[in-house]
Parts: sequence; C-alpha cells; structure tokens
Amino acid sequence: MGFLKNHTFDEIAIGDRAALVRTLRHEDIQLFAAMSGDVNPAHLDAAFAATDRFHHIVAHGMWGGALISAVLGTELPGPGTIYLSQTLHFRRPVAVGDTVRVEVAVREKHAEKSHVVLDCIVTNQDGDVVIEGEASVIAPRDKIRIVPPLLPRVQLVDDAAPDAS
Amino acid sequence: MGFLKNHTFDEIAIGDRAALVRTLRHEDIQLFAAMSGDVNPAHLDAAFAATDRFHHIVAHGMWGGALISAVLGTELPGPGTIYLSQTLHFRRPVAVGDTVRVEVAVREKHAEKSHVVLDCIVTNQDGDVVIEGEASVIAPRDKIRIVPPLLPRVQLVDDAAPDAS
Repeated sequence: MGFLKNHTFDEIAIGDRAALVRTLRHEDIQLFAAMSGDVNPAHLDAAFAATDRFHHIVAHGMWGGALISAVLGTELPGPGTIYLSQTLHFRRPVAVGDTVRVEVAVREKHAEKSHVVLDCIVTNQDGDVVIEGEASVIAPRDKIRIVPPLLPRVQLVDDAAPDAS
Repeated sequence: MGFLKNHTFDEIAIGDRAALVRTLRHEDIQLFAAMSGDVNPAHLDAAFAATDRFHHIVAHGMWGGALISAVLGTELPGPGTIYLSQTLHFRRPVAVGDTVRVEVAVREKHAEKSHVVLDCIVTNQDGDVVIEGEASVIAPRDKIRIVPPLLPRVQLVDDAAPDAS
C-alpha cells in the first residue's frame, strides 16, 4: 500500500496538476443519496428520470464536487490542506457508466497565509466538460507522509430484494 | 411515509426558505470518505488530526455541500430542479456531535429560463456560520408529487475489528 503524501506550499509550483479517474456505478449514486439524504428521483428513479430533462438517471452534481475534494485532500496539496472555498459550474450530466477525469491545476500562489488557488475541471470520456470551478485552499507548511487511514467496507443492503442465500 | 413534492418556478417567491438539520456522526465521515475516496487523515485519523490545525477530527467541507444539494434536490425547489452552479465558503470546521442546520433561501427569480438563485447557509448549534454560499438552479415548471425512491440500507463493515457475534 502506498503512502499518502502532501505537497507543501513551498513545493507547489504554478501549473502543478493532479487528477483521479472514476467510472460512475449505480452504487455510487445510491451511496451519495444515502450519505447526503438527497433522494431526488432524478438520481434514483429510472421511471421518473425517463420523463425528466436528461431522460435517464444522472449522478448528483455534488458527487463531482466530492471527487474534487478528494483530489485536493489526498493529492494536491493533500493532507494538511485547509479548504477555504469552492465554486462549481455544472455543465453536463454524468450517466451510469460514464468515466470522469477530475483534475486540479495550480493557478495562483500567495505566500501570505500559504494561499493557493486551483482550477478544477471534470471531463467525461468524450472530453466534454462536466464541471468546472475554482478551489481556494491554505496549503500545508509541513511535509506529511502517512499510511492512509483504514476505511470500513461499505455494503449496500437491499431489504426489499429477495434474499439470495 | 410522506410524498416528495417540488416547488415550481411559479410557486416560488423571493424569501422562501427550506432547511434540514443533521448531527454529524463518525459514520457520516466514514461514509463520505468511502463514497468520495477522500481519505485525508484530517477526517479519519484521530492521532493525525490532533496535530493538525483543528486538533480533532472534522467533517469533510464538502459534506456540507452535499447537504445543501439535498435541500435543493428534495425540498426547494425539489424534484425536477437542474443544478447550474454552487459557491461554497468554508468558514468553520464541523466536529463529530455538532448539529448543523442547512438552509437555502430564495434571493432572485428570473422568468427567462426559470432561473432561481438561493442563498445557502450552514450554521452549527452555537449559531456560528460553518458554510455560506450561493446556488443557482433552473426551477421545475411542472408540479411533481412522488413517493420517495427506496434506498438500500448502508452498512459499514469494519473487517479489522474483532467479530462481535
């Protein structure tokens, strides 16, 4: 297992980038809904979604926001980062099976308060922009290299489904 | 079980408000981390967090963003809403046991494109502002009243812990 490392304010240069790639599964939508309580049927009810603007189930827009937060908190700048603000423009929906690339790129550094501004862009497998925005953070002063925290395994249990056992 | 209802563009008035209240549990943080992949130790590793800026584990800032999305997607305007953009200013951390109130309030209506702008504010049990921001949405034209989608139950399974059975 790899270590989780950060990039300190001094190490960060304008133009530095980090990214993650994720393919949306139906379970990701269910998990976001359970976590947030956002049970908007556009994300969960195929019959409803068929009548809605996009004609099929789409991810919660803020799922992409959560992925941006993941890149900032684990990659660039990584552990020790303080999140100050985020803007998000939701340009296109994400459907189950779509593969998104979530990239952050350093645009500004301000030595006072170790303030860093990053452009954030989420694109799909066709290269279309799904989300664009801007993150503002305080970058860490100290180098951190740490074993990633262990997470419990998440199980989705469909109580309504027949028991397979 | 209640119905999920929306507020159409025509029904919405400047000053309309909707809110939810949620108390942060450790499991909420773990679930957000599992969902997003954001395993930043500030949220998951008590020993690390003790050395960090806030001296204890805090929620991911974007957890509050997800709760704002939940109010917009289920309450005001509710089902049929198209999310255009969101700004988030993270003012204060949220600790396990804190109770947050997530409120959206309609600030602007623009008949062209059924565009609605809402002020979003998350406060804690002391009345301190945790997050403030602004959401921009397309409000639904058609009234919707729907049985809320059924969600699978989420179980967090700690494979490292001794089996209690």
